[in-house]
Amino acid sequence: MPRFSIVLEYDGTPFVGWQRQAIGVSVQGAIEAAIFKFSGETPSVRGAGRTDAGVHALHQVAHFDLSKDWAPGRVRDALNFHLRPHPIAVLDCTCVAPEFDARFSAIERRYLYRILTRRAPPVLERDRVWWLINPLDAPAMVDAATVFVGHHDFTTFRATQCQAASPEKTLERFDVVCIGDEIHCTVVARSFLHNQVRSMVGSLKHVGEGKWTKDHLAQALAARDRTACGTVAPSTGLYLADVRYA
Amino acid sequence: MPRFSIVLEYDGTPFVGWQRQAIGVSVQGAIEAAIFKFSGETPSVRGAGRTDAGVHALHQVAHFDLSKDWAPGRVRDALNFHLRPHPIAVLDCTCVAPEFDARFSAIERRYLYRILTRRAPPVLERDRVWWLINPLDAPAMVDAATVFVGHHDFTTFRATQCQAASPEKTLERFDVVCIGDEIHCTVVARSFLHNQVRSMVGSLKHVGEGKWTKDHLAQALAARDRTACGTVAPSTGLYLADVRYA
Repeated sequence: MPRFSIVLEYDGTPFVGWQRQAIGVSVQGAIEAAIFKFSGETPSVRGAGRTDAGVHALHQVAHFDLSKDWAPGRVRDALNFHLRPHPIAVLDCTCVAPEFDARFSAIERRYLYRILTRRAPPVLERDRVWWLINPLDAPAMVDAATVFVGHHDFTTFRATQCQAASPEKTLERFDVVCIGDEIHCTVVARSFLHNQVRSMVGSLKHVGEGKWTKDHLAQALAARDRTACGTVAPSTGLYLADVRYA
Repeated sequence: MPRFSIVLEYDGTPFVGWQRQAIGVSVQGAIEAAIFKFSGETPSVRGAGRTDAGVHALHQVAHFDLSKDWAPGRVRDALNFHLRPHPIAVLDCTCVAPEFDARFSAIERRYLYRILTRRAPPVLERDRVWWLINPLDAPAMVDAATVFVGHHDFTTFRATQCQAASPEKTLERFDVVCIGDEIHCTVVARSFLHNQVRSMVGSLKHVGEGKWTKDHLAQALAARDRTACGTVAPSTGLYLADVRYA
């Protein structure tokens, strides 16, 4: 059976998350419904990242199998047609080897987190950023974020319901840059724990507010204790930005 | 009476446009309602640019008078509170001289027009761009756009219902740049005719498609005839991006 890989963009706002749930519309479920509409088949679609409710994607990758040898461009266009009016777009579709797995073959995932700091609420970027009224000390955040980089036990920054076998992960990068009145955090690793990015960004915000020092952040990490985590940043500012394969 | 100037950002999608209309919600009307809610007063609000239905603003400027000497920061915060849930944000508020007029004192207006060219529909940028499936020849558009720069009779690129006394305007800049899969047109002039930016961008798109040459565009301008205009670009991609004063 031919295996297809698709690159997806979506607005996570109306979805219960990537994964199918008992109640509510999931990104995975919407794509599976669209596949059925054009092919009459009901393959399971597996995504590289299981984004939570409200989390967006600029570049999610998923794969599925069909019995017919469709032209990838037709699969892309048919999915985009049948996905309407869901805010999900298939940017690309390719045929891949049968051993390709969108989740397990991925060697690098990149997340973007956008914080908007200003008095006025976001309107053009509503549901697209974490809105904070007070300015943050960005240079302090740039410096403190280095605490996260490298191989660590991230128990502090992991949701209690996280199902990963190990809390140890290797963070390749945690970059913090200012763009106008936004602060963008770009985080890169092979894989992440559940809620890890939002937990790290929420804790880093305390540094930006002057409530935590870099040392506090390092101590929270070393504590390997979920109760040492700061705020968990809201889903609205988070984007799965890229997934890479060997 | 103290005069206040406000800087506004808005998502034009749900509005009938800047100006109050018999039917529908206008940006002007929503702001006037919010002013009444916090002050009990009913001043008329005058904007620098009368954006059409669906046109957005990154930086619109407007002014109004109140009898009480409010602190500008309080006016800004009260307006943002009472404007909810309309997608309008007051970025700034200042006290200005009684002779300041948001419309007539403006010496420069800048519009941004965003075109997205890709197979897949926009989802994170839905209602924020003009979506075109086929790629455009951006270098040809960069070159042809120079036709518009300078002092011209823009009758061709003016809505038939335009009420300006003269069709002559001086375009300071018409810049075309590629940003990823978007083409951004930035257009600067002291003032514009009704639908001028959308008429120019829509005609320039024909150059990008290879249907028109730069000479065709120059001929359309020289024709001073509305029927020589190409497509009028949709409102979704247009942003009032800046207004400057002496």
